[in-house]
Amino acid sequence: MTTTSEPPVTTSVAPSAASGTTPATVSGRSVSDRPASGRSVSDRATSGTNGPRVDVAALEHLLLGRWTDVRSNARRLVAEHEEIWKVDGLSMQEHRERTLGIMKYMAADEHGQVWRAFPERLGGNDDAGGNLVGCEELFVADPSLQIKSGVQWGLFAAAILHLGTEEQQDRLLPGAMDLSVPGAFAMTETGHGSDVASVGTTATYDPETEEFVINTPFRGAWKQYLGNAARHGVAATVFAQLVTNGVNHGVHCFYVPIRDPKTLEFLPGVGGEDDGHKGGLNGIDNGKLHFTDVRIPRQDLLARYGQVAADGTYTSPIDSPGRRFFTMLGALVQGRVTLDGSASVAAKVGLAIATKYASERRQFAAGEGQDEITLLDYAMHRKRLFPRIAETYAISFAHDELLDLFHGVFSGEEDTPQNREDLETTAAALKATSTWFAMDTLQTCRQACGGAGFLSENRFTSMRSDLDIYTTFEGDNHILLQLAAKRLVGDHGKQLARAAKSPAGMAGIVAGQVKDTLLHKASLRKLGQNVADGGGARAADHLLDARTQRSLLQGRVDGLVHSVAMGMRPAMGMKDAARAQEIFDDNQVELITSSTAWAELFRWDAFTRALGAIDDPGTRAVMTTVRDVYGLTVIERNLDWYLANGRLSASRAKAVTTTIHRLLKQLRPHAVDLVDAFGYGPRHLRAPIADGSERVRQDEAMAYYRDQAASGTAPASEKSLRKASSRS
Amino acid sequence: MTTTSEPPVTTSVAPSAASGTTPATVSGRSVSDRPASGRSVSDRATSGTNGPRVDVAALEHLLLGRWTDVRSNARRLVAEHEEIWKVDGLSMQEHRERTLGIMKYMAADEHGQVWRAFPERLGGNDDAGGNLVGCEELFVADPSLQIKSGVQWGLFAAAILHLGTEEQQDRLLPGAMDLSVPGAFAMTETGHGSDVASVGTTATYDPETEEFVINTPFRGAWKQYLGNAARHGVAATVFAQLVTNGVNHGVHCFYVPIRDPKTLEFLPGVGGEDDGHKGGLNGIDNGKLHFTDVRIPRQDLLARYGQVAADGTYTSPIDSPGRRFFTMLGALVQGRVTLDGSASVAAKVGLAIATKYASERRQFAAGEGQDEITLLDYAMHRKRLFPRIAETYAISFAHDELLDLFHGVFSGEEDTPQNREDLETTAAALKATSTWFAMDTLQTCRQACGGAGFLSENRFTSMRSDLDIYTTFEGDNHILLQLAAKRLVGDHGKQLARAAKSPAGMAGIVAGQVKDTLLHKASLRKLGQNVADGGGARAADHLLDARTQRSLLQGRVDGLVHSVAMGMRPAMGMKDAARAQEIFDDNQVELITSSTAWAELFRWDAFTRALGAIDDPGTRAVMTTVRDVYGLTVIERNLDWYLANGRLSASRAKAVTTTIHRLLKQLRPHAVDLVDAFGYGPRHLRAPIADGSERVRQDEAMAYYRDQAASGTAPASEKSLRKASSRS
Repeated sequence: MTTTSEPPVTTSVAPSAASGTTPATVSGRSVSDRPASGRSVSDRATSGTNGPRVDVAALEHLLLGRWTDVRSNARRLVAEHEEIWKVDGLSMQEHRERTLGIMKYMAADEHGQVWRAFPERLGGNDDAGGNLVGCEELFVADPSLQIKSGVQWGLFAAAILHLGTEEQQDRLLPGAMDLSVPGAFAMTETGHGSDVASVGTTATYDPETEEFVINTPFRGAWKQYLGNAARHGVAATVFAQLVTNGVNHGVHCFYVPIRDPKTLEFLPGVGGEDDGHKGGLNGIDNGKLHFTDVRIPRQDLLARYGQVAADGTYTSPIDSPGRRFFTMLGALVQGRVTLDGSASVAAKVGLAIATKYASERRQFAAGEGQDEITLLDYAMHRKRLFPRIAETYAISFAHDELLDLFHGVFSGEEDTPQNREDLETTAAALKATSTWFAMDTLQTCRQACGGAGFLSENRFTSMRSDLDIYTTFEGDNHILLQLAAKRLVGDHGKQLARAAKSPAGMAGIVAGQVKDTLLHKASLRKLGQNVADGGGARAADHLLDARTQRSLLQGRVDGLVHSVAMGMRPAMGMKDAARAQEIFDDNQVELITSSTAWAELFRWDAFTRALGAIDDPGTRAVMTTVRDVYGLTVIERNLDWYLANGRLSASRAKAVTTTIHRLLKQLRPHAVDLVDAFGYGPRHLRAPIADGSERVRQDEAMAYYRDQAASGTAPASEKSLRKASSRS
Repeated sequence: MTTTSEPPVTTSVAPSAASGTTPATVSGRSVSDRPASGRSVSDRATSGTNGPRVDVAALEHLLLGRWTDVRSNARRLVAEHEEIWKVDGLSMQEHRERTLGIMKYMAADEHGQVWRAFPERLGGNDDAGGNLVGCEELFVADPSLQIKSGVQWGLFAAAILHLGTEEQQDRLLPGAMDLSVPGAFAMTETGHGSDVASVGTTATYDPETEEFVINTPFRGAWKQYLGNAARHGVAATVFAQLVTNGVNHGVHCFYVPIRDPKTLEFLPGVGGEDDGHKGGLNGIDNGKLHFTDVRIPRQDLLARYGQVAADGTYTSPIDSPGRRFFTMLGALVQGRVTLDGSASVAAKVGLAIATKYASERRQFAAGEGQDEITLLDYAMHRKRLFPRIAETYAISFAHDELLDLFHGVFSGEEDTPQNREDLETTAAALKATSTWFAMDTLQTCRQACGGAGFLSENRFTSMRSDLDIYTTFEGDNHILLQLAAKRLVGDHGKQLARAAKSPAGMAGIVAGQVKDTLLHKASLRKLGQNVADGGGARAADHLLDARTQRSLLQGRVDGLVHSVAMGMRPAMGMKDAARAQEIFDDNQVELITSSTAWAELFRWDAFTRALGAIDDPGTRAVMTTVRDVYGLTVIERNLDWYLANGRLSASRAKAVTTTIHRLLKQLRPHAVDLVDAFGYGPRHLRAPIADGSERVRQDEAMAYYRDQAASGTAPASEKSLRKASSRS
């Protein structure tokens, strides 16, 4: 897993090289509510390019991915139904009830999105991948709607689907699917979030009555942060330590009624609290739950991976308690996959708004009497937005591959242990890095639009508040990166172990290590020589070679993983837990860095593979530049590593920055095309600053001053009068 | 200005070196509502240190700064008055009215904070610096209260104070001071934010009636984002182009009534709109204003820097229109100074909450049967929080120096053009970098507390939403950094110009440039040698030498400024505006980086000077480590520059990271002391996760399992049974 499958390397085509090709025309209207770009011809004209053009419709189609229709339909649904759009400034109670109301409407549509993942025999579509795609797009309507739906159908119902037997599915799913039973997913506790294996809630089997008795033994074991728990939930899938015949078989999931469906009063033994106002997602009624001797029938242990017989005998199809636990958790990976997709949606909407505005907004003139300059014509503004557009493409293409992997496993088409493991690692690394990226991107966009960016009507602050929790729920991002990194380091260790079986192999490793050190020294010496070659044009060509980019990205992954593996080696099998913990502590930061680097490589590969699917030469030329910007941006933000490890000379390192600057200038005329191809129209963006009115205002102001000058009514400026008099 | 005055260099004292000193006891209670640390003895015990201790009270006192009583009293006010604390989840209308109500209460107190800045003859204290200190602390109560107060007293009233004549102050200030006239500060327009000189609103003098006629000529010239404009404001200080006798004398400020004080209806010719819901600060009624032939008497041009006689003749004490404009704007620098202080307050509150929680919260055990590990005992968690604690100290000490500079100028004690210019540059660079830092810090803290961090009751998301706009109001951060950087580059240019006056000097510059290049090459060669010395202990000692840190920080400022100055040189005096703009564009990113670097150096110097004021050896030892963490963290985040420019060898660069890791471990036992010394108690922090209840929950859970084990009622774990059976 330390290497991803390498894409066929497409060597960069600088836009100028493709200038002989016929500019592609935008062919036909696309499936979704297509962006009205609001661009005048002058926007093209200012670029003065005869170079390649982006075929926006074709690129948009590519981005729709494998579930083209599902994604298009989901977008059309959002565009057509104003009544599901988030309203900022609602009270928490209003927002909660409104969200539930919309969900009832959605659940009533038996051919609708929310039933897609469930078995055909129960009215669903058995379409695991398509289900996630539809859910991702709900973010554009209202993230609260997305996540409350996710709680109901992606967690509560999905727990029944993935952890229950067929009998349990038939019995319990219909109510969950049609929302007659709103449910909570009761896994996290006040005391244990990331460490699910240590939850304190117990489910003790009582053979007398053939019941499980659910208990919350101490305050830290209260279930916490659960959507639907504060108000709407009438049942919950509760994770608890299964104890039978005096043995704790670890965490299992139980179906537990919690409220009277009529009165919405807690059932006997169940208690809870409202989490109250949150930083975002206030359309969801998060809350706490606790249980005191709550009895449920034996049949309501979700029994796919563990059963208790009437006499209390425990059996499981998976012998190892550890593997059993991870299999159960792994069945719930879809949340992480959806969040990776949602991050991509959020970044696209944010960047589309900020880029359209920056293409019209002007501020400061280069000199007196000159037109004011468009924001996109400032290097700093391009540097803030364009690399994020590039990274969003990378995230989007990589997410499509993650969806494939997910669908393969969950449709059963390619359900192998290896694929399950790859899916978990990939979902963890991608979700962590993309949700962070989207948060930073929304904040960058908000600031790039100044005061206008702070108004809720322009969406950034609203989306950002809601997205915030995506970085720590469904797995805290740091913990997820650690999980992925441990896999990378583990795989590396196995390789070493295989090699070490022969004395020659062991010597090879040692030699390899030595060689590695030598290599670095050699690189440093080479670095000294490179200074003499002065960088410049040749360095830039080299950096635009896809093989160079890949080798640098792969080299960093390998270097980090190897370094961490060597650092943590002494702790392996160590008896002294404190000392082992100390060794882990010394390596934790680099460990987490290594899976971040792996995610970046994975995305570069996915982007490069996607380039192979672009037929139009103009589009491919521009998108290759976008890929280069992504690759070089990743290298630039880790320049210190490349320099300190002798992978780049000082002059090459400087060339990375100057090359990016040049590429961003080249992308200037394509910026609006690139965000239009994200596929979100005016009824998705819904931001007054991106609806073309800024251009109207700018034009009006320029016309006012022009008319004033032409009619001779303009006052003279004291400044120019003084200049003139000092000259005479 | 490229160098700040160098502090006496305190060489680092590693904590171990001071272990012979008597640990300082916490002496007495401090002035403010002192933190109840909730620490048990074991927290000390786990550190196992006999090393230095922090004298928390003394350090807290140092942080209170020059206006000790003002800051303490402001904090006491917040702690005592629950009724002024922000309530999350209020509707916008409720929050707006509540905020105005509190302000009326504040204004009614004639000895209170809000009158402090105003002239004694009008009931104020003529205390410029103290006024800002008090305002900064209002953030802890409710940022909306701080900023709506800031609009009333720091902008609207301050415009009258600083831009009006004594007659105008006497006539217009009392209503602004006692809030009988709530006012808006109408500078920004929809079309012009950062570029104030280009606002479109006009004030044309009519000698017939001796009135100014205020007009909004086009949509882009609507005044926008103004606090008090949507609802409460009855007057406004309006910035407009002053036109008289056919000449535009540039932007001046006018006192304009906008609403009937009784009905709150707009006066004839005035119109506007509500900005509606915002990303934060919803206790303020921001809105838009526009004017159609609104007439005000000649006497209501705020006339300190420009007067119009009855016949329309314009006069000004400042000849140059450019200098006049910047003098008027400069009079309003206090907003930026206050925001720098507020950023420091926000970071302190956030870090205190997150650090206290992390000192109690446990997650994952090192091995079976082991206690779970406290979050602060994870390297990643320390790396997330501790460098931010260090940087917050640096920001705080630097802010004290900025307050001194501000007070010197505005009290008239040290009001020189040089000081005014230094004040503007320093305020710009510090405000930009500290508001960004505080935003990132609150977000880091929010995530470091997981789901609990997302609940509004734990403050992070609430403070962060409000703080968001601090990064773009009172000057967009990028524009401010550009402003500061232009000053640095300008000063550098003057030095070069002075040197260039003699042929020998010019040769020197050329030689200097050449030498500089040679120097870098030489450094790179030296770098090759350093690889041989292997870094390690000697490198770490070197990095802990304050002289090394300062020389690295100063070297980066000089290197960046020189590089930008050389890059922009060709554009100086160039006729071709487009080409000049292109040259600027090529240098803009580095330009903005240079003033960031300068702010970092300024803070390191301020921190180092502050170390000199610490008498207690234990405190000084710990705080020196904190300073080292700050210095090395700044160096670490710019490692690529140091490596690419040959200022650090690869091995030294790696030693920066390992040294920080080691220092953070050393700071572990002092973490809670360091945030306690920020001086915010439970009624300031008001976060349930920081009130000690987490420790109670952890203790309860541990006791439960211990009792279960002792009583023999604990179920056996399947995992250990299997292990045991596989062994036998």
